[in-house]
Amino acid sequence: VTKSREVHLVVRPSGIPALADFEVVETDVADAEEGEVLVQNLFMSVDPAMRPRLTDGYDLGQPMAAAAIGRVVQSRTSGLAVGDLVSNGLGFREYFVSPARGLRRLDQVEGQPITVHLHALGGTGFTAYGGILRVARLRPEDRVFVSTAAGAVGSVAAQVAKIKGCWVVGSTGSAEKAAWLKDEVGLDAVIDYKEAPVRRGLRAAAPDGIDVYFDNVGGDHLDAALASMNTLGRAAVCGMISGYNEPGARTTVHNLANIIYGRIEIRGFTVADFADLRDDFRRDMSEWLAAGRIKYRETVLEGIGNAPRALIGLFEGLNTGKMLVKLAD
Amino acid sequence: VTKSREVHLVVRPSGIPALADFEVVETDVADAEEGEVLVQNLFMSVDPAMRPRLTDGYDLGQPMAAAAIGRVVQSRTSGLAVGDLVSNGLGFREYFVSPARGLRRLDQVEGQPITVHLHALGGTGFTAYGGILRVARLRPEDRVFVSTAAGAVGSVAAQVAKIKGCWVVGSTGSAEKAAWLKDEVGLDAVIDYKEAPVRRGLRAAAPDGIDVYFDNVGGDHLDAALASMNTLGRAAVCGMISGYNEPGARTTVHNLANIIYGRIEIRGFTVADFADLRDDFRRDMSEWLAAGRIKYRETVLEGIGNAPRALIGLFEGLNTGKMLVKLAD
Repeated sequence: VTKSREVHLVVRPSGIPALADFEVVETDVADAEEGEVLVQNLFMSVDPAMRPRLTDGYDLGQPMAAAAIGRVVQSRTSGLAVGDLVSNGLGFREYFVSPARGLRRLDQVEGQPITVHLHALGGTGFTAYGGILRVARLRPEDRVFVSTAAGAVGSVAAQVAKIKGCWVVGSTGSAEKAAWLKDEVGLDAVIDYKEAPVRRGLRAAAPDGIDVYFDNVGGDHLDAALASMNTLGRAAVCGMISGYNEPGARTTVHNLANIIYGRIEIRGFTVADFADLRDDFRRDMSEWLAAGRIKYRETVLEGIGNAPRALIGLFEGLNTGKMLVKLAD
Repeated sequence: VTKSREVHLVVRPSGIPALADFEVVETDVADAEEGEVLVQNLFMSVDPAMRPRLTDGYDLGQPMAAAAIGRVVQSRTSGLAVGDLVSNGLGFREYFVSPARGLRRLDQVEGQPITVHLHALGGTGFTAYGGILRVARLRPEDRVFVSTAAGAVGSVAAQVAKIKGCWVVGSTGSAEKAAWLKDEVGLDAVIDYKEAPVRRGLRAAAPDGIDVYFDNVGGDHLDAALASMNTLGRAAVCGMISGYNEPGARTTVHNLANIIYGRIEIRGFTVADFADLRDDFRRDMSEWLAAGRIKYRETVLEGIGNAPRALIGLFEGLNTGKMLVKLAD
């Protein structure tokens, strides 16, 4: 028996979640039985898309779920050995027992921390890769606008578009992030939406309009994109964080009539839309990371007790790049 | 020289257009020269999509344009004879001279008035046909919602979906139109959006949700459709009349976040998206009309002086089915 701690949702938040909506609970985890492993989680991910699941999705009084990286500490299966690192969907807890099935052994990418499997080479990276290439049907001549371009998904979407030869403008919410996008990531233009309304910023930054919009925001960002969208433009909608803390995840958009004469497509998506691209993604992204062609940043809070804080911080701009929680060394 | 009258736009309207925004002007039309015909227009079409062109599109102090049917009254070309009926884009005027090129000779469809070429077999019919079949990628098992289902475009879209085997619910704004859609057109369900909010009406009428939405309205109708849309649903956006009289054609939508997990596509379109379907459309629609499988209604105002009234009436529910202006016998 191993002592573990796990995070429960205890109150469904309205608006931005509060620390009191969560509880850290101590629990006993049994030893691995035949065919199972006991895993200690090292890192877990928090993601804006968790917010709608706080309203409808996560059960109250149960451990929450999240992408995580763990280390096998007991093994009663030949498939995994003690010390193996595995990806799993059982974050928000320190230990768990699982059959080997459902756990994927992770390889270290040369020159990269293991946490890259939780962002650029993980779910957020795959979301960005498939969203920009498949859903937005990216072409090398496209002018591309990516919102929250310094975030975990946006930064990969923007850089994949750059790698494919596109002209890319990104939006972000601080001068520091804007400088990173311009100087280190090498975007062609950057909008700081706290400096000026995003619609005006986009018009000025992209006077020839845009062909593709990768949306993580909705609301004023989608309105701005529609106001600047060229004929036959495409908006791939990954998220609408502007509405996640509103009742019914409402985000208000006024410029939809622009899609008619512009013959514009807006498509919401999840990774289910391009599951067939997963091998291509792993191969391309591993190469790009090894070659230093994909930049990223991480914000890491320490200890499972900080997991609620990390999640709430996503809606307060606390993170720079991917927000992670470190659960153990 | 022939005396003619034509309608000019003299003031760009804000909000619903007023009669004073238009002027009926007398003019002299020269005789046809070599290679030309003189045409007398018999019927012309007015269409909600003209509203944005009053703000930006039609020139001030010039004759407006519209789809029309005319009769050749002088011919100096072998291509067309006096008495031929021709479709043209030069409505809002009684007479005009034109080269034969650009005029298409119209055939009478058995059992149908010639005006069918201005709706079911004309531009609005083609818009509906291509929009529902190509843009919405209709499949026989789809549950389909069509807004303004008693209108010129909506009624054809709804009936094409019925012909293809779909379950179809339509929205309209009066009990009389609702009865026509239910009893004569044979839709599976009808919502009168003046009786109850369309969102509630749609939920009740389509408890299993919808797979396709054919949008002519935007605003609350698009919100309702998004709230009832099944996974992988498609919205083909033909028009957003709810915004046409607002500054910037703004129409407000709150439920766009629904497109993410539902992996829903929203696509604006014009007939340019399916120009290759025109022959298929003429063949199919002629057959369906001849077989009585497409029902329609017309509202006809008389005299070019009533053309502005007809156009304004589109935004006041004055028409039942296709709004036309009869210019001559």
